[in-house]
Amino acid sequence: MALRIISRHLLQKPAAWRYSTAAFPSSPQAKCQEYERPLMKTTVPGPKSQALKRELSAIQHSDAVKFFCDFSASRGNYLVDADGNRMIDLLTQISSIPLGYNHPALIEILQDPENMSTFVNRPALGILPPLDIVRLISESLLLVAPRGLRQVQTMACGACSNENAFKAVFFWYRNKQRGGSASHEDLESSMLNQMPGSPDLSILSFNGGFHGRTLGCLSCTHSKAIHKVDVPAFDWPIAPFPHLRYPLDEFTAENAHEESRCLEQVEEQIEAYSRRGRPVAGIVVEPIQAEGGDNHASPDFFRRLRGLATKHGCALICDEVQTGCGATGRFWAHEYWNLDSPPDVVTFSKKMLTGGFFFKDELRPDASYRIFNTWMGDPTKVLLLHAVLRVIREKHLLEGTQRAGVVLLRGLTQLQEQYSNLLSEARGQGTFCAVTVRDQKTCDNLLTSCLNKGVVLSGCGERSIRFRPALIFTEQHANIFLEIFDSVLAECK
Amino acid sequence: MALRIISRHLLQKPAAWRYSTAAFPSSPQAKCQEYERPLMKTTVPGPKSQALKRELSAIQHSDAVKFFCDFSASRGNYLVDADGNRMIDLLTQISSIPLGYNHPALIEILQDPENMSTFVNRPALGILPPLDIVRLISESLLLVAPRGLRQVQTMACGACSNENAFKAVFFWYRNKQRGGSASHEDLESSMLNQMPGSPDLSILSFNGGFHGRTLGCLSCTHSKAIHKVDVPAFDWPIAPFPHLRYPLDEFTAENAHEESRCLEQVEEQIEAYSRRGRPVAGIVVEPIQAEGGDNHASPDFFRRLRGLATKHGCALICDEVQTGCGATGRFWAHEYWNLDSPPDVVTFSKKMLTGGFFFKDELRPDASYRIFNTWMGDPTKVLLLHAVLRVIREKHLLEGTQRAGVVLLRGLTQLQEQYSNLLSEARGQGTFCAVTVRDQKTCDNLLTSCLNKGVVLSGCGERSIRFRPALIFTEQHANIFLEIFDSVLAECK
Repeated sequence: MALRIISRHLLQKPAAWRYSTAAFPSSPQAKCQEYERPLMKTTVPGPKSQALKRELSAIQHSDAVKFFCDFSASRGNYLVDADGNRMIDLLTQISSIPLGYNHPALIEILQDPENMSTFVNRPALGILPPLDIVRLISESLLLVAPRGLRQVQTMACGACSNENAFKAVFFWYRNKQRGGSASHEDLESSMLNQMPGSPDLSILSFNGGFHGRTLGCLSCTHSKAIHKVDVPAFDWPIAPFPHLRYPLDEFTAENAHEESRCLEQVEEQIEAYSRRGRPVAGIVVEPIQAEGGDNHASPDFFRRLRGLATKHGCALICDEVQTGCGATGRFWAHEYWNLDSPPDVVTFSKKMLTGGFFFKDELRPDASYRIFNTWMGDPTKVLLLHAVLRVIREKHLLEGTQRAGVVLLRGLTQLQEQYSNLLSEARGQGTFCAVTVRDQKTCDNLLTSCLNKGVVLSGCGERSIRFRPALIFTEQHANIFLEIFDSVLAECK
Repeated sequence: MALRIISRHLLQKPAAWRYSTAAFPSSPQAKCQEYERPLMKTTVPGPKSQALKRELSAIQHSDAVKFFCDFSASRGNYLVDADGNRMIDLLTQISSIPLGYNHPALIEILQDPENMSTFVNRPALGILPPLDIVRLISESLLLVAPRGLRQVQTMACGACSNENAFKAVFFWYRNKQRGGSASHEDLESSMLNQMPGSPDLSILSFNGGFHGRTLGCLSCTHSKAIHKVDVPAFDWPIAPFPHLRYPLDEFTAENAHEESRCLEQVEEQIEAYSRRGRPVAGIVVEPIQAEGGDNHASPDFFRRLRGLATKHGCALICDEVQTGCGATGRFWAHEYWNLDSPPDVVTFSKKMLTGGFFFKDELRPDASYRIFNTWMGDPTKVLLLHAVLRVIREKHLLEGTQRAGVVLLRGLTQLQEQYSNLLSEARGQGTFCAVTVRDQKTCDNLLTSCLNKGVVLSGCGERSIRFRPALIFTEQHANIFLEIFDSVLAECK
């Protein structure tokens, strides 16, 4: 209890990134603050990471491993690797660490004896939920429910969230088609994967979109071929996503024209698939296409997409797995759109720590066990989210992210002027930024050079660098990164 | 440290189900032993559970909720609900609590400061794994790797595990077909969900099988129509699963005939789908069809199925999500089959706490990012599994489960003789048992009566009761259950 009081006290002191000794009783990092700058001891991966990678490679494919992390030595925006290299992290475990490493508010959750039984007894949430789940969800997820959506279902990860969102959309669409629940014939034929019980319905997705890698999601993912090749897919409609020119406010007329072209294709696809007897039950879209290359579209595009969905009786599924939880400077990226009617479904995961989806009352399943699995999420992740959301509120992290984003984007814009042969299309909302690099090889080289100077980053699309820092990333951190990036660019041949 | 020594000491004392005071410093249950018997205060759900259910119902469909659990008051085989009812648990959160509630070995994991950073910093395992992951996997998953399988990939849940197992099988099959990696044409066409990049391959599954509820898995699930109806499905082959007569050793000739009939159908389906240009890349099967009604088949059936898979170049995927981790009295249920060549893939989740799959070296993907997602499992679950496996070894829980299973199955067999108008087909391996009830309504009534006398159970298939206790369920617990079940059956009209 004493510890909790201390931790709360620390949280109230602005910028006090400090650990109580009790948090790491056996750790030499006790009482340390966040590190001041990157500090590199080896190239990355260093010898210890390389040795571990060889060991891991004996039991699974591990070529994608960048390095091994020493999480207990990591702090805030700084990730420390197995070789003691300390790097500023603008990737944050693929955009999934909301408050940086070892945040005291999360440590407090782990140290509270009241939470012990949640961590050691994972419930089957759909049939035997814990006493405190309603309160937990009410004080976490419901506080950030997108306007107009009052229903929420937790899930374990982003792909599960999208798969189940699709299912909820299919149930809703078929009930609407039939004017009621499934018939005996529907039930019987579904057991054999045959019509009408296994209906020929589709989800419309966009070129460049990413929605996960399970078979349903993967049919809607079109970011990189290596994610998709050799996996059977549903023949579902795919529409072009706008290729806009940046900065968006300099090319409004041209971009509006491109967006209209894409929306016409959306409508054509909906009509074509309807004629083919495979109606579009839902449209799935990311507010910013993240894996596909940080492709933006205007609020007007999304408002018109919402209109098309309504016109054709399709549900609009807004996939906020990567954009959600504040990185754009608003809690949900779709808040920038000023929609008259909200998306029908909003899916989330990553920084939210728990997966899941919000949905309109109309999309609530009409029977038990239709949206169901053993665990249906994990209350330990909701506990952690509860703390994350409190810190976001108390520390005004959305505002901080907006401020840091201004510095980051302005810096990227200046660097692209300075290195116009290398960089273009600096773009972003909040700290959810990206910049396009001349070619793929140069992009890879820049990422490697940044890593070896103590910046963890990754690419997206064919040749963009994306920025996905935590919500505790400040103007100061942006400046540290920009200074290093400048030096990397200066050395780039 | 003192605590760890105490806990280890306790673990070494047989049947010492005791909590150190430090484990629950603020809990009135400190120092308590496992409860002795069920103790009921209300009917279930009681007034507190009912009130919570009304609240939950405002934010999601909650008709399937049985009652709300007070996990901190639960102990070992006893689950306590919101109204203070204490029930012996033979369902264990749909077969996913390996060591009962609040096991000291799991509490110890949470209390060890060395583990703190694992719980508060979830890594993107595929690119930035933690320092200790190789050791953790080596000392947990690899120790229980099925014979012949040396590769393992963690995943978040059972459905993800099966989806990714299917993908690994598709990659392997296509590389085999082509004699090498994907062509440019494969890559290009896959982005549009078109052949040849999105190939027309299939997974053969069985009537009555259950493999999860995401779209790929659901195409292989055929246990209950309500799980499937209204969701688009792949047109993949479905073979009959043997309908055997029990006890198996009394009907060997008849059952062998039925198994041959099913295996002929398997081969016919493989050939038919090959002719239709949709070859069978893999066959997915549960060692005991669990959700579908605890349907057993003989080791000979599985050996011949293995042979058919090999003959036709299909991978055999053994779904041990529900059967794995000891409930059958062996760690993996397929160990009972004495296969010459192991299954190509074995998937797991539930009691294993982490999802994932073991696979043969040949099924290792040929490139990075083919089996990939943000989290690829959760090291906190591997940490907990590490402790679970240690307790299974140290406490000889497989042997204990075999002993308890003998008492349970013998008791069920006696009750079905005594109440032959109500029960039949008592069957099982280890404590993974079931009994068939006269009709669905009677089955539901028996389950309700058991619940109100302090036994948590659930049905499977159309009218079976399944038993899924934890691995700490002993002969004594079996006798407590049998006594109550006898009284319920005696009162059944």
